[in-house]
Amino acid sequence: MASSVERLSEPANPSIREQTPAWIGVDWGTSNLRVWVMNSDNHPLHALESSAGMGTLEPSQFEPTLLGLIEPYLDASRVLPVICCGMVGARQGWSDAGYLTTPVDQQSRAQAHFTQTNDKRISVHILPGVKQLSPADVMRGEETQIAGLLLQTPTFSGTVCLPGTHTKWVSIENSTINSFQTCMSGELFALLSKQSVLRHSVQSENWSDEAFDQAVASVIEKPETLASALFSLRAESLVNAVPDEVLRSRLSGLLIGAELASCRSLWSDKKVMIVGDAKLAGLYAQAMSTLDSQVNLVEGDAMTLSGLIANYQSQLELQR
Amino acid sequence: MASSVERLSEPANPSIREQTPAWIGVDWGTSNLRVWVMNSDNHPLHALESSAGMGTLEPSQFEPTLLGLIEPYLDASRVLPVICCGMVGARQGWSDAGYLTTPVDQQSRAQAHFTQTNDKRISVHILPGVKQLSPADVMRGEETQIAGLLLQTPTFSGTVCLPGTHTKWVSIENSTINSFQTCMSGELFALLSKQSVLRHSVQSENWSDEAFDQAVASVIEKPETLASALFSLRAESLVNAVPDEVLRSRLSGLLIGAELASCRSLWSDKKVMIVGDAKLAGLYAQAMSTLDSQVNLVEGDAMTLSGLIANYQSQLELQR
Repeated sequence: MASSVERLSEPANPSIREQTPAWIGVDWGTSNLRVWVMNSDNHPLHALESSAGMGTLEPSQFEPTLLGLIEPYLDASRVLPVICCGMVGARQGWSDAGYLTTPVDQQSRAQAHFTQTNDKRISVHILPGVKQLSPADVMRGEETQIAGLLLQTPTFSGTVCLPGTHTKWVSIENSTINSFQTCMSGELFALLSKQSVLRHSVQSENWSDEAFDQAVASVIEKPETLASALFSLRAESLVNAVPDEVLRSRLSGLLIGAELASCRSLWSDKKVMIVGDAKLAGLYAQAMSTLDSQVNLVEGDAMTLSGLIANYQSQLELQR
Repeated sequence: MASSVERLSEPANPSIREQTPAWIGVDWGTSNLRVWVMNSDNHPLHALESSAGMGTLEPSQFEPTLLGLIEPYLDASRVLPVICCGMVGARQGWSDAGYLTTPVDQQSRAQAHFTQTNDKRISVHILPGVKQLSPADVMRGEETQIAGLLLQTPTFSGTVCLPGTHTKWVSIENSTINSFQTCMSGELFALLSKQSVLRHSVQSENWSDEAFDQAVASVIEKPETLASALFSLRAESLVNAVPDEVLRSRLSGLLIGAELASCRSLWSDKKVMIVGDAKLAGLYAQAMSTLDSQVNLVEGDAMTLSGLIANYQSQLELQR
């Protein structure tokens, strides 16, 4: 198990730093583990990160991995609640937290899966994912970011787009996840740019907005051109010596354009909130800037923490 | 360099087996090397195969690799012509044979690139690939299969489809390659089924014609659905326990359907000749069976050998 721990932030005010932790928020994805040590006002006292993602761990390794990070904050005299979201709740994770089935409203989101631990100083709950029966779809982690968004903007109605390896397009109304759709453009980009014949033609640190925009527009207009447009990136490099940065930007534009074409009903004439890291979410916003939708950007990590807070509050209320 | 040599065929008639070789035909692709030892009537005396594909070799290794296979047929008293096609003529191959530019007619196809060797018992020529300037595209090897097809069916007019890792769709008229289009569905299928998240849901030795046909039809009708249909394979497995054989067949159908959608002008209302191995070419024929085109199948290796013969004959005529 290769892992590294990094202290992400340290509150400037010593009085906050010395406060007693009230609970722990955990975002445990396939390749990363993030931990927030929270006070009773729901402010983070410490933020920690490790590369010990769910994909690198056996079920028996989750508890010691978590304890290795949070040991300094534990106290034998009390039980610290730990709320986890993400792939940690998959069948191959720490403990199968199952799925809620769409439509998923605020009340059902309060559910969490209690996970037995050997260490009695913690009480671990893992949030379930969300599934849709037809067309079949699944998410695990994004539902928490949406809960966070709805904690901050309870009246939001429209589509939430969460770009990533597997981008989610989620239709929200009355604080309810009605339906959603997943596209694997992020994974396709990684496979094609690193492992296909195109890898010889798209290795560049630079970027061309013009090439990206043109590719997006061409695929949205004619989605059927995608299959032949992909190999043409290699051919343009061999035949016309088109620079790698243009071809890399074009590959990204082709894949995001194909995704937009497949999700048209979810953004056309809709309010769209894009939740993610600045770079990737920014590309989606750029691709959509000329389309018939109102697009706003929100930072993804902040929404995850907000979603964990929303769930912690729900747990407290359930206990009253 | 890992390689294995296999004697593929041995003529039953001893009088043929003992005939003097007249020339050598070579199909040297990225992952395989095939060699035919030919008599003066253009019949193969021996067929050999090795895994020493172009992708595994440094430029200096090509000549010794070939000699290792054909040494028994060489004679110090004469020079044996060797005609090669395929990726051996790429910039990273034995020697850059360049490209002919479309339109490519029978006369231009007689060109071949003389390659200097240390061993004076052989005279090596490598056939050039074909490039198209706009839209940019390239082929290397398929042009020889097309020459073979035109040797056998000189009057063919229509589209030749050559399925493979990078499938080529080639428009032929008056024995001329007018234009062509490449789709990388074969490489996409390999990447998605072996290395993406879909790999967990498509590992099966079995097959469902029904799932394949439905997927082809759905993407041809609505090409814009491809991007979201891909992840739904994983979701159908998780949510509805759809069997792997159905999902594998569906993945193949989605990718071939997307390819057919992108190449519609090349098969709609056209005669289509599919050149390839029985399994993959058969899938393309099945996908096209309900479409508005006349489809015929031809075995790919036979066309490669026929194309090498066509070129050898052209070389002889040039020398007269």
